Order: sequence, then C-alpha cells, then structure tokens
Amino acid sequence: MIDPLVMNRNLKYYPVGDIKECRIHGRNKIINGELPLFFSHSGVELASSGTELWVEIEADFSLFEPWVAFELNGSLIMRQMVLTGKYAICLYRGMTYGDEKRGFIYRELQAMSDDENCHIMIKGFYSDGDFKSLPKRSLKLEFVGDSITSGEGTYGAIYDMDWLPAYMSYSRTYAGIIEKKLNAEVRMISQGGWGVYSGWDNDRTHNIPSIYTKVCGFAKGESDIKAGAQKEYIPDDWQPDAVIINLGTNDVSGFDQPPFFDPLSGKYNKLSRNPDGTLKKEDTDKIEAAVSDFIKQIRKLYPKAYILWIYGMIGYELAPFLSNAVYGYKEETLDNNVFYLTVPETLPGEFGSRQHPGYESHKKIAAILADHLGKVLK
Amino acid sequence: MIDPLVMNRNLKYYPVGDIKECRIHGRNKIINGELPLFFSHSGVELASSGTELWVEIEADFSLFEPWVAFELNGSLIMRQMVLTGKYAICLYRGMTYGDEKRGFIYRELQAMSDDENCHIMIKGFYSDGDFKSLPKRSLKLEFVGDSITSGEGTYGAIYDMDWLPAYMSYSRTYAGIIEKKLNAEVRMISQGGWGVYSGWDNDRTHNIPSIYTKVCGFAKGESDIKAGAQKEYIPDDWQPDAVIINLGTNDVSGFDQPPFFDPLSGKYNKLSRNPDGTLKKEDTDKIEAAVSDFIKQIRKLYPKAYILWIYGMIGYELAPFLSNAVYGYKEETLDNNVFYLTVPETLPGEFGSRQHPGYESHKKIAAILADHLGKVLK
Amino acid sequence: MIDPLVMNRNLKYYPVGDIKECRIHGRNKIINGELPLFFSHSGVELASSGTELWVEIEADFSLFEPWVAFELNGSLIMRQMVLTGKYAICLYRGMTYGDEKRGFIYRELQAMSDDENCHIMIKGFYSDGDFKSLPKRSLKLEFVGDSITSGEGTYGAIYDMDWLPAYMSYSRTYAGIIEKKLNAEVRMISQGGWGVYSGWDNDRTHNIPSIYTKVCGFAKGESDIKAGAQKEYIPDDWQPDAVIINLGTNDVSGFDQPPFFDPLSGKYNKLSRNPDGTLKKEDTDKIEAAVSDFIKQIRKLYPKAYILWIYGMIGYELAPFLSNAVYGYKEETLDNNVFYLTVPETLPGEFGSRQHPGYESHKKIAAILADHLGKVLK
Amino acid sequence: MIDPLVMNRNLKYYPVGDIKECRIHGRNKIINGELPLFFSHSGVELASSGTELWVEIEADFSLFEPWVAFELNGSLIMRQMVLTGKYAICLYRGMTYGDEKRGFIYRELQAMSDDENCHIMIKGFYSDGDFKSLPKRSLKLEFVGDSITSGEGTYGAIYDMDWLPAYMSYSRTYAGIIEKKLNAEVRMISQGGWGVYSGWDNDRTHNIPSIYTKVCGFAKGESDIKAGAQKEYIPDDWQPDAVIINLGTNDVSGFDQPPFFDPLSGKYNKLSRNPDGTLKKEDTDKIEAAVSDFIKQIRKLYPKAYILWIYGMIGYELAPFLSNAVYGYKEETLDNNVFYLTVPETLPGEFGSRQHPGYESHKKIAAILADHLGKVLK
Repeated sequence: MIDPLVMNRNLKYYPVGDIKECRIHGRNKIINGELPLFFSHSGVELASSGTELWVEIEADFSLFEPWVAFELNGSLIMRQMVLTGKYAICLYRGMTYGDEKRGFIYRELQAMSDDENCHIMIKGFYSDGDFKSLPKRSLKLEFVGDSITSGEGTYGAIYDMDWLPAYMSYSRTYAGIIEKKLNAEVRMISQGGWGVYSGWDNDRTHNIPSIYTKVCGFAKGESDIKAGAQKEYIPDDWQPDAVIINLGTNDVSGFDQPPFFDPLSGKYNKLSRNPDGTLKKEDTDKIEAAVSDFIKQIRKLYPKAYILWIYGMIGYELAPFLSNAVYGYKEETLDNNVFYLTVPETLPGEFGSRQHPGYESHKKIAAILADHLGKVLK
Repeated sequence: MIDPLVMNRNLKYYPVGDIKECRIHGRNKIINGELPLFFSHSGVELASSGTELWVEIEADFSLFEPWVAFELNGSLIMRQMVLTGKYAICLYRGMTYGDEKRGFIYRELQAMSDDENCHIMIKGFYSDGDFKSLPKRSLKLEFVGDSITSGEGTYGAIYDMDWLPAYMSYSRTYAGIIEKKLNAEVRMISQGGWGVYSGWDNDRTHNIPSIYTKVCGFAKGESDIKAGAQKEYIPDDWQPDAVIINLGTNDVSGFDQPPFFDPLSGKYNKLSRNPDGTLKKEDTDKIEAAVSDFIKQIRKLYPKAYILWIYGMIGYELAPFLSNAVYGYKEETLDNNVFYLTVPETLPGEFGSRQHPGYESHKKIAAILADHLGKVLK
Repeated sequence: MIDPLVMNRNLKYYPVGDIKECRIHGRNKIINGELPLFFSHSGVELASSGTELWVEIEADFSLFEPWVAFELNGSLIMRQMVLTGKYAICLYRGMTYGDEKRGFIYRELQAMSDDENCHIMIKGFYSDGDFKSLPKRSLKLEFVGDSITSGEGTYGAIYDMDWLPAYMSYSRTYAGIIEKKLNAEVRMISQGGWGVYSGWDNDRTHNIPSIYTKVCGFAKGESDIKAGAQKEYIPDDWQPDAVIINLGTNDVSGFDQPPFFDPLSGKYNKLSRNPDGTLKKEDTDKIEAAVSDFIKQIRKLYPKAYILWIYGMIGYELAPFLSNAVYGYKEETLDNNVFYLTVPETLPGEFGSRQHPGYESHKKIAAILADHLGKVLK
Repeated sequence: MIDPLVMNRNLKYYPVGDIKECRIHGRNKIINGELPLFFSHSGVELASSGTELWVEIEADFSLFEPWVAFELNGSLIMRQMVLTGKYAICLYRGMTYGDEKRGFIYRELQAMSDDENCHIMIKGFYSDGDFKSLPKRSLKLEFVGDSITSGEGTYGAIYDMDWLPAYMSYSRTYAGIIEKKLNAEVRMISQGGWGVYSGWDNDRTHNIPSIYTKVCGFAKGESDIKAGAQKEYIPDDWQPDAVIINLGTNDVSGFDQPPFFDPLSGKYNKLSRNPDGTLKKEDTDKIEAAVSDFIKQIRKLYPKAYILWIYGMIGYELAPFLSNAVYGYKEETLDNNVFYLTVPETLPGEFGSRQHPGYESHKKIAAILADHLGKVLK
C-alpha cells in the first residue's frame, strides 16, 4: 500500500501563496502563507496542465465540522466532510497531461459563528503540471443573506429537521447556479438565523450589518482572528457589479418569538404584533431603518454596485416594509442604483430538508435573478 | 342532410333567463331575456343530464370578431371565431344520458373598445336533459389588467406581430389557470394598451379606473348600451375574496413614447424621463396617485376583498412606484388588506406571439399566485 | 349586421382546384372540384398575402360530427365542431396586407367508420390576396394506427369516458408534434378500435390491412364512394421517407374479450390465453402473420420507405410477438429497412380522457421518435 | 486540535460483523471480520439512535482510486474519493440522540478490472447509539450492465472525455433512482467496455457472462481473491424479484472496431458488417447465442426472477438481434418470465460527460422502468 502522494513522483508542492495564476474567491486573503476559508464558496480556483491535483489543508472544529466541495471544469464531483488536522485531499488523478483542467476547491459551509474552532486553511497544492492563467469571469457578484443563502435545506431528506453542516451548501444555492449562468465571480456573506435588524429569536446582536464591514465578523475564534477575520474589510479593487441581499426572513420571525435578553443593554428585545395581528409600526420602523442604514454601509464600500434586495422564499410578510425601506433610501439619497424584488415563495414540491427551500426552489429563483441581473448589468 | 338541431327530437329550447340552475360568470346580467358577454371569461356554466347541448347566440362586429371557448367538465375542447348573426353553436353531442356534464361557454376575447359593434349575446340553450344545480365554487376572484391579463400572445406563432383577436385568450391566462387550481369563480376587467394612469401611448383616457365602476366601460356601442354596459356596476352580493390588479406595464411605456394629444384638455400628455434616464418624479407621482385612488375605488365596492397588485411580467421598472403607492395607501388608510407583489419577468423560452408572455409564463405566474392566494384566503 | 363575407369587398372566391400553390395533405384528391377530407390531418395548406382567408366547406353526419382545426403560421388557433351544410368558415381576418401567412385547415377527427354520413368537403377559399408557393417540407411521413394515433383522449377531462369526436385530435398527437419538429408532411391512416389482425372485440373485419390499399377504406358512405374513398390508393410520386405503424394494442385486447360472431364466416372469432395466462401460440401466430403480410403490403406501395413499427403506449404484452414478426419479415425478405420499437407506456400523470395517453404522453413519444427518425433519415 | 473520534467519548467501535441489525448490500460477504465492497452500490445500511456515525475502512489502488457515497435517510449528502490506508470516515455528527437515522455507505465506483489493487474493505463502525433493525425493502433487484449501468458520464462536465472514476456513479444511475422509487434492495454487476459476447474493442474475454457466476469476477487482485471475489457466487436466499440486464452497447461497437488479438486462441476476433453496412448474420448469431446462454445462466441462479433485457440508451442497432435472442430463448425453453425492452436513446440535452447518458437520461429511463417493474412485480 503506497500513499498516492508518493506514487506519483512528479508531484511538486506549491504553497498557495506561490501560485500567482490561481484565483482566490472570497474576502479572505493569504496570511502567513495560508488562506483561511471563512465564508461558503471561499476557495481557490486554478487551471493546471497536470494529471493530478491535491490540496493541503489544515482544519479544526469543536461542534460543527466544515465541508468542502470540488468542481472540475465547472461541474461538482466531490462533496465531503472536513476532519481536524493538517492533511492533503486529492482533487483529481489520472487526467490527460497537457490538457488544461479548471479545478475549484471551496468551502461548502457558511461561516459558523456558533463554533469558534471551526475553520479551514488552505496551505498549498500538489501538482505534476504547470499552472495556467484563468480566463476572466464576466461579472463580480456579492450575495448577503441568512440560512436561505447559506443553502440550508439544499441537501438532506425532506423530513429531516436536525441542524447539520451537511444540510447547508453553496453548490445547490441560487448563488451557485447564477454563478454558472452568468460566469460570475461570487462572494458570500451569510449566516443562518441572522437578520438585518435582529435574529430569528429577537437576538439583536444577530444582525448582518454589525459584522458586514469586517473581513468575516462571524469568525471569532483565535485562529480566525490571527487569520484576519475581525479586521476591517477593504475591498481593494474588488468592486462587485451587484450586491444581492436576501435578508428579512429571520427579522419577521421575531414577531412570533418570545423576548430575548440582551446582556449588553440589560433589556429584553422583542418585535411585536398589534392586536389585529399586523406588525407594530414602531417595530417595522426599526427594521426599515436597519435596511436603509445597511444599504448606506454597502454603498460606501461599493460606490458603483447595483444593490438588489430580494426576499420572499419563505414568506412575504415583510415585503411592504423592505420595499418601503429600499425606496425610502433611494428617495433620501437619490441613489437610483438600488432595487427591491419579492421573489416567489417556495411551493409544495420545492422544499428541501429543515422546511427550507430545496434545490428546485433555488433553481427557480436563480433563473429569475440571472435573467434580471443579466439585463440590468448588460 | 339534416340540421342536427332537427335530428335530435328531444332537444328543447330554454331561454337563458329561464335556466335558474345555471351560473352566469362576469359582471353582465340578463337584460330583455338575453345575456351580453362583455369581458373575457364572461359566460354561462351549467350542468345537464342531457346527451346534447347547444347555445344560441347573437353576435356582431365591424373590425374585430369575437371568439368563444367551451369547456366540458373543466377541460377546453373548443375555441372558435364568432361570426355575425343569430345562430346556434353545438357544444356537445352524443354523451351518455343521465350522467351530469358540466359545460362552460365563455367569451375568449377581451371587451373590444376599438370596435363598438363587437358583441356577443347569449339567447338560450337547447338541451335534451334536465339542468342540475352546480356545486359552489370555493372562491371568488376578480382580475383587473391590460393585454397580459387579456392573454395577448397566449396563442399564435412566436414571431407573429399582427394584433388579432385570435391571439388573445382567457383559456391560457394565469387567471384561467388559477381558476382551475383554486376552484374559483373569476371575473375579468382587462384591456390591452390601457394603464392605471394612462395608456401605452400616453393617452390619458386609457386608464382602467375611469371605467372600472361601470358594468363594462370599454363597451360603448349601441347594443352594449342597451345591454347595460355603461350602467353603474353594483356588485350586489358578489363580493370577491380577492381582487388581483396587474397594471403598470402600459403606464411605464409612456415614458418612451411621444406625447399624445388629449382632445378634451387640448393639451399634450407625456410621461418623461430625467436626463439620467430615470423616471421624473412628477410623473411617477401621478401614477402613484392613480394607483392609490384606484385602490380606494375598489375598496368601496368590495370592503372585505384582499387587494393584490401584481406587476412585472414584461419589465420591472415601475415596481418601486407601484409598491410605494400601494403601501402609501395602506399607511394613509390603515387598510391592511392590500399587498403588492412583483412577479417574475417572462424568461426566454416563455414568450408567446406579439412579444407577450406565452402560456409557459402564464403557467409559472399562476403557480406563484395560486399558492399565495391559497395561503392568504385560507 | 353585415355578413363579414360581404364586408370585405376585396374577397374573391377560389375553387380549391384552382389554387395551384396550395398543398393538399392526405391521400384524398380533388374530385369534381371539391376535396374530401377523409382522414385526420387531411387538409389544405396555403400561403397568402391577403388580410383575410375563409374556407368554404360542405359537411354532413348522422351520429358523429366531424371537427376541424386551423393553424396559422404553424400554431393552432382554432378547433371547432363542424355542423351539416354548405357554408364558409373564417380562418383569419385583419392581418397585415402583403405579409405572407401560412394557413393550414385540416380535419381534426379520424375517418369515422361508424357513421357513413360523416364527411367534410373543401369547396374553395375566399381571399383578398395572392397565393404564394409553399416552401418544401423536409420529409414525408405516413402514420398508421388505432385510437392512440387518432389522438383519442388528447382532449377531455381526465375522468371522462364518453366516446366523443371532440376527444380525438391530430393537433395533440405524437404525429402532429413530430410534424413540427421535423418539418414533415404527414399522412394518417388510423381508426380507433382496429388492429393489425382483429379489433379490440375480436372483430376480424376491423383490421387495418384490409383497407390500407384503398384511398380511405373506412369511409363507406355514398358521398365517400363518390369522392373516391373506396378506390385503389395509388401513391403516385408521394413516396414517404418513413411509415410509422402503431398497431397491436387492440389485437391484444381480444385475448380478454368474448368471442365475436363473424357474419361472413358464420364463426365466432376469439384470441385466447393458455391456462397459465400466456397468449396461445396459435393466436399470436395469426397476429404475427398479419404483421408480416401488412409490412409486405406497405413495401409494395413504398419500395424505399423506412418502415417503423412502434407499440407500447398502453401496455407491452404483445411486444415479443410484434418484434418477432417484424424481424421474421426482415429475415425472410432480406429487407433491412424495417425496425421495431417498443415505446414507453403512459405513466401516471400522462393520461388524458378515456384512459388513453394524454398530451404529455404524446409529447414524450414524439421526442423519442423525432430523434430516432431524424437520425435514421439523416 | 482534537481528533473528533476522541472528542465524543461515547463512541464505541463495532466490527462490521458484530452489527447484526445492519443490511449488507451486494454479493460481498464478511470474511475475516471485514466486508469487501466489490461492485458499485455494495455497502452497508444501518439504522442507529446515536448522534454520530463513523465507518472504518481499509483501501488501496494503483491506478484508479475508488469513490464512496453516503446517504442519510435516503438522501445523498457525501461523495468522495477514497485514498489508500486504513482510516475512519465520519458519516454524520451532531444529530439528535434517540431519533432513528438510516445511513447507507456504499461504493460509488464499479469494480475496476483494470486495477488489481483497487479495493475497499469495511472494517467496522463507531457509534454512540444503538443499532436498530431496518424495515424490509419491498423488492430485490439485480442490475447487470456496462458503462451505462456503471453510471459513466453521470458526473463531470459535458465536454470532458477523460476516463475517471469520479465520472462514474451509482447515485445518479437509473438503478439508484429505481431503488428509491420502488424501495428496492439493489445489486449491481457492471463493467464499462464489456458486452454480452465481446467488449467494445472486440476483446472476447470482456463478456459479462464469463464472470457472472463468480462473486465478483472483475476483481482479480490478491486482496480480492482473499476476500472471495473469484469464488462461485451462491445466492443463498437472496432471490431477486427481477434481473435487469443492459448489455449490447459494447458488442455492437465491435462491428466498427479493428480486430482484437486473443492470446488464448491465438486468433484475431472481429465482428463484421456486410458490404451494404448491415451486421453480418454469422456475427449477430454469435451475440444472440451469447444472450440466450446468459439468460440460461441467470435462470439457473434465480429460478423465479423476472428477467428483463433492456438496451438502447446509446443506439438501437442491436435491438432486433437482442429481441430475437430473448424471444428465441423463451420459445426454446417455454420460460415466459423474460422480456426484452428497447429503452429510449439519450436525447440532445440529456447527455453527461464522456458522451454518455447524463443524469437527465437516467431519470427518464428510471421512470419508464420503475413503472414497468412496479406493474409486472405487482
């Protein structure tokens, strides 16, 4: 029995920082010679002439194990759990020497704010060929969202209700499908349970804007901090053509959840309904303000991006307030490069596990958004 | 050669007004013993035990001939042009005596405001059986719209651009598909080219609200007037569970069309864009006011209906203003039983003739709306 | 009220025999200046520059009324019952003068062997434009079959069991769909309830080969005989690229039906099963012989046609015997231009009325056959 | 960094042979306490109440690495390459204690006859719960085939032509889809490039019947032999309800390939065409004899199984000879429990990588076969 890394004598090791032809996806940067994969779809894409490709990673977790996926020439072939330790994963073997293969190894799991030890670092690659420059992608897109955007429910049996990393994905999300349709470079900032104003359980700290301007505010572990997760995010020249925000689904849940104690303020937070069942204006106003503020935050980072707020895959109740907020922002700032779109609810037959939109729902939404973005971004 | 009306000696003639078991669909009422079919889907539904059923109609037109469709037990079997004159059309023959058959003969064409002679009257039916009472439908729905709701493009070859009655339908519209899915009774008020504020060509008289409270304001011919088309519409006890308005697509077209001379005011009307291409606020304000006023008009007629404004099948540009208007109305009146929903644009492959949404697009929209209405109306 | 035939003063009448640019579909020929439409899809296709087109027909029936359908530029827009008498049907009106429109009026109903009076004659057309020559179609195909090929069940509600002309069609059959996919000229020879050896009820006279070499052997009425239905069919230069036979479904039914008294032989006919439920060899041998003989008959008419026998849409039981027979013929004659193909059974959800394959099933079969024919016929 | 196997102190190791509640899929048996996974879909299914499940395997290969897939409650969540060595793979973690989870780890890759070292052994499982008895599956099915049945092309980008283990699967084959639809227990005997008489390149040793009665005749490595691969296969009480054979696609390829030198006979083998392009009868006779003999072989093992021969996903040319052979066998033996079915060719848009049927094609075939098997097997 021979370690396959030893079998192929032509394999050479390349620290990830040395491969100038590769494309790093995500906000993460190489630090100390290694690349942290903070968000789902963070990863490395590279074209190679070799017969074989391995990635060397170092990973850890306490509660929730990370997952990775691998695409060969744009098609998913591998999806697996990542265990702790430093080791190499073979991505492909036995391909024709000289032909150019495009490989893309990425994190399939969202940043896990509930497990400070959960992390993956890419250290380098083993290859027996040359790296080639990658063709430019046609567009840059940033997706911001909650569990829907984190692909929760896109894997798993329909009645399964356990909350597992395995049931989240990038590979079956609308973001991933749009990426292929529009040949886009995609960055993801998403977290299950979080909202634009507060989380599903009225936890006010679980709002995406609070971490948005950090590299990866969800990642608070020691290793993450060393890797720069809590640093201010500076986009450099990565200016997206569009930012697509899919938030609101957790905020509206708070109206039906018990109050949440906020240790910082010492108060209980709760969004409330009027006696007739409608949402209290003082509370929807808070959400609207959060939406407007968040768009301003994004606009600062990305002066020219088309900002598209979408909502609706698990219920439409907040739609009026989100559109009010988006168009209130527009009126206030005279910034016309924003849009709000309610997207269709998940229909019976389109659900995945955990009562979340399944692959069929994501495909439908992707068709709608890819068409819209394709037109708007010419 | 024997006239089939003579062949079957058991056929008896029943004036439409004498068949108390039948269900009349549409705002039209029997006047002088005959039933005018003003709008698309206006018609008569009846259950019968006979082997055979004929409808006697009287019809006329100058420019645009009407069309009718016939459904047997809920399934379309006939779709034909209606010529001038008074004559009988056989709807079915040779069926098993005693079995109950549900027949529904309806106008397949919108009211034709461009042809004052275009009309169909139902005079009566020939049957050789008894009429039976019809099961109650689960819901009542009113659809208000333009050419999209009039099914323009749902028939005809994809590159055809002639404006033909044949290319409009009820049978392939989202309204017709929702009717079947929800077992609803449906009324239609729609007119190609018209808007909520002005028509596609900036003609301000082509706004639906101006005719909405008449029985059928589009129908201005002598025969129509006798048949009560221009009378005030009084819903009696026909209270819809929901009114679905699909307007805005023609209004937004005016921003790119030349001015239209209004003989009444002696002025030219035109909606205009700002130099940067955005819509002028003074003009979108006019549309928003028209939307708000229209909802108030509807609310007066139907105090308890869920009012759903949809838009988007041929472009999203007016969405911000329509949602502003709908939610502005809501805030002003505290009427919470209204909703605005942008529905997905027609994708490549879903188009019909005349660059309009085709059957595939209507099926997609129907799935989304039937799901939504089913949930909201419990 | 003006007869629209009078309204348009530019309309001129052209006897069908005078329009040399038109294409006659079907085995029928103009006799005494009129064109009988014997089989489903028999009809007239013509291109015209006029704004308007009418067809003048003469029709009759005693029991089963005929139906016609009209396609404008290849798209179905009209489907209606044909009553008795001589009269004109308007096919389109109000189109742009000068543009070429392709119209196709055809019989939507199979030949009705159970009603000797059932017939349609095309007398001529009214047009206000010129007739243009039609582009050549890419292929010629003849379809031979039973109720499946006659489109029984392709219209009508799913639980309807009445046997109505309305429930049969050409427009929703696999033949019609293949016609569009391959741009083929199609002829149909089909009859519900008939087989290759005997009918569904063991009636031996109901075998297609017995009438195949007549123009339309099913049509036995006085008018049909005058129109040449019982004459020997001479294909002239109409040599199909392929003949597709879909027979066997009724033959196999005989194994489970009571004996049928044959007045000619004075004997009872019945196909029988062995005690173990399998089909008796002496009876399948009869069917196999009939298949082989039928192919020989076809081969005589069409020396170069690809002969494709398909079967299976309502059950596979006869497949072994049909393939044996087809390949037995091949071995015996060394004629390699024949093929047998079992096509997929109708799945739940694909059924139409009368427990027959519905439109979804026909679409699936058409995709399979169009692909196969496209490859074989290059 | 803690090895997760150590993290969870409740994990206990169970040698596979000690878990009497598990279900072993495939012809393989536990030998010396470990379970070899010879064929694709060989694997272990078990229900457990624990929060976590690991499998311990030992694997090796020289050229072609094996792949495994894991289904949780019937839904695929993991698909990964297997490297050499003895190690544990975590299948799930962090699930609710007490709830019953059904896990199924299986080989995703066919037996690799081209790499004698390629093998996977299952040694045992780590669990922190109890194992539960599995519900009985409704049917037992054995699938016998070539690369189509080995799922070649069901993964990978559409233009990829490298021959990679990654591009084969069980998870996206018609067999796998039928398994879910019919709740069947499935065994696979398949090998890319092999035929019923000879391989794609006229290699006569590459015929499935020659290895069919061994446990896994493709597996000839030392480890395989120790694990019993070359032993006579004795079905014991595993009697399938149906055996589905999908062979012929490689045999027919030989007619267009150069001769192949057979070292055993010292002769060149080649199937040949006649000058007119048809297949030479002496050669199709050889294939027919091989088919007939193979069915007899299968019948000996499985006296009561329904034997269904299917063919056609990549071309129909051999269909006449296969059906002749199957029905010749039937006539000769009076064994009526056999059937031949040509299944639809892969249509444009349904292809996967390596010009093989893709997932869409497999789904279509699975719908057809599941319906047929469901009816035949009641």
